[in-house]
Amino acid sequence: MPETSLIFPAKEYRGRVARVQAAMAATEAEALLLTMPEDIFYITGFLTRFWESPARPWFVIVPATGDPVAVIPAIGVDLMSRTWITHIRSWPAPDPRDDGVSLLAGTLCDLVPENGTIATPMGAETHLHAPLGHYDAVKRHLGQRRIIDGTHLIQSVREIKSEAEIAKIRETCGIADRAYARVPEFAREGAPLDQVFRNFQIALLQEGADWVSYVAGGAGQGGYTDVISPAAAQPLQAGDILMLDTGAVKDGYFCDFDRNFAIGTPTDAVRRAQEALWQATQSVLQTLRPGHVACDVHRMLDDALRASGATTGGGRLGHGLGIALTEWPSFTPLDTTLLRAGMVLTLEPGVDLGQGRILVHEENIVLREDGPELLSTRAPQEMVIL
Amino acid sequence: MPETSLIFPAKEYRGRVARVQAAMAATEAEALLLTMPEDIFYITGFLTRFWESPARPWFVIVPATGDPVAVIPAIGVDLMSRTWITHIRSWPAPDPRDDGVSLLAGTLCDLVPENGTIATPMGAETHLHAPLGHYDAVKRHLGQRRIIDGTHLIQSVREIKSEAEIAKIRETCGIADRAYARVPEFAREGAPLDQVFRNFQIALLQEGADWVSYVAGGAGQGGYTDVISPAAAQPLQAGDILMLDTGAVKDGYFCDFDRNFAIGTPTDAVRRAQEALWQATQSVLQTLRPGHVACDVHRMLDDALRASGATTGGGRLGHGLGIALTEWPSFTPLDTTLLRAGMVLTLEPGVDLGQGRILVHEENIVLREDGPELLSTRAPQEMVIL
Repeated sequence: MPETSLIFPAKEYRGRVARVQAAMAATEAEALLLTMPEDIFYITGFLTRFWESPARPWFVIVPATGDPVAVIPAIGVDLMSRTWITHIRSWPAPDPRDDGVSLLAGTLCDLVPENGTIATPMGAETHLHAPLGHYDAVKRHLGQRRIIDGTHLIQSVREIKSEAEIAKIRETCGIADRAYARVPEFAREGAPLDQVFRNFQIALLQEGADWVSYVAGGAGQGGYTDVISPAAAQPLQAGDILMLDTGAVKDGYFCDFDRNFAIGTPTDAVRRAQEALWQATQSVLQTLRPGHVACDVHRMLDDALRASGATTGGGRLGHGLGIALTEWPSFTPLDTTLLRAGMVLTLEPGVDLGQGRILVHEENIVLREDGPELLSTRAPQEMVIL
Repeated sequence: MPETSLIFPAKEYRGRVARVQAAMAATEAEALLLTMPEDIFYITGFLTRFWESPARPWFVIVPATGDPVAVIPAIGVDLMSRTWITHIRSWPAPDPRDDGVSLLAGTLCDLVPENGTIATPMGAETHLHAPLGHYDAVKRHLGQRRIIDGTHLIQSVREIKSEAEIAKIRETCGIADRAYARVPEFAREGAPLDQVFRNFQIALLQEGADWVSYVAGGAGQGGYTDVISPAAAQPLQAGDILMLDTGAVKDGYFCDFDRNFAIGTPTDAVRRAQEALWQATQSVLQTLRPGHVACDVHRMLDDALRASGATTGGGRLGHGLGIALTEWPSFTPLDTTLLRAGMVLTLEPGVDLGQGRILVHEENIVLREDGPELLSTRAPQEMVIL
């Protein structure tokens, strides 16, 4: 068993903690309590598929100064001790009498003075990854200490990726690129859609994914109607447009982009939509810069699509990406998040083809000082015909 | 696109709701608010990998009488309308101004009288799958309505599987059985462990898994030390014991069992541990009955292992299984959950081989009136040698 389980050198994680602590210094918070797997992975490097089990809560506390403290089930101590974290407190979870409540409360009391303030994420794209009743019980142990929203303390740091992180996401995008190139091997007229989904996941694993957290897509005559359902067994037919979308994972880092394929010659309507989507994306690749805000991207894509005569639908047209399939911000008309160099983003314009049919086009980029750099290999301008 | 996305006939879901409502009738709750993907899937049949995105919260409310109401992001309306649910309210999520808060609060106020009571899961194995700040905002809209813990309202129903559910879990176990039978094709001396993990996932997909939510395991000389880490690239060596564990998914239903393999002839210590684990499991398969409680299973396994001279470790020795990789109860010395016919469970005894090395053995069963029925094909009594 390797001595370290870390993907990056310890200094990468120390830098993250320093940035969280710098953000914390501008607030009244004396500690940041994290419960979500992504946040715990980000701070500690603790990577496991064991999060899939909802049986046990996990906690990491970043104090205003000094190293983080992990308060975790005993089953995780061995792996946590092979990260850079040295302050580890554990209990024999699951324990129906006291499932970490006293240990977490005691740790918070050790780290935060009476009348002090604890932050924890409470905003959009977060959730309390622990039982609500246990959280209320912890609060009752905290005396005069207050709990405030700490969403921005972690999100403002996580949203800027280091070069090491960008390299990881590029690697995962490369895995998906190679898997998409192999779609013609298994997707053709007559192939059942559920089998296409299975074969695509197999291709992703063969090309180097550690696991495949997300595959979605759809197929339908002249466009698909739904992109979040599991695949049915219906065979692909001539005239179908097939879309595959994936969040494969390598070393804990995701890609998230799709590709479209035509089963036989696509209709003129599909060709025009494809061209509009490709060109709209192209215009953002050329003009997006740090200093734009999230809603600017929505407007740029929407304007370009309308200018080409396409009908746009509702919904967001892209989002952040990294250690989760989707991260903030959202490219909607309402999101005013400042876009900064180092953000990894998806550009995901969609076109409404009528009768509920849509076409969606997606690329992954990192925003640099001089504009977007592609992490996915640019989709072909004309749709691949199978 | 199929008209229904349901895996079971609507009456299956209506029966679930009726049982939740019967449980609710014994409490003061006038509605049960659900936020976790598993609970929403259980009540509505809404199955998607889109849960992987943490961007949007989803809500389902089961009123004391009448059909459930889904309060969901617009992107889910098409798929939800192809379940049996007809009361669907949606908003254009993500919306930074009001991300479903008013809609959820308004719906709760429609369904629950002033001074009424709303239940939501707050106990072990649950979490609030929505932003804590939004939950607090919803509470402020509820006037005199109270929120109480509703964990048992859903858990006491979910824990008893219907025959249709048992058939699904058996099918997923069969997929894993066939994949385990193929491990000798790709696991041998010199094969890197991470590649073995990938090939095992490929085998699961080839044998019919829709996706593979969980693969873990380990390999080490005379036993493994850690069963929750991702696989490193270290090659398997003669003398290693390889363990693979999986939660594959078919139609939303999981299996969760492991298998052990020896790279070359195992040591006598490993052989004795394997025999102790196999016999301990055998004794529970013969003697477990409805009416036992969860801690009885821990004691039965622990007693059998000690009687054979094995050293047992801490931790739980099995748990529930179904639409999540792990469900309640836990086979620990402290869990007094009554075991009832229709529960699907894992038996997972482990032996401590010294120097941090362990051996873990796992089967999946359904508890019948006359005792356990295996859902996994019984592990061979002697460890398979690769």
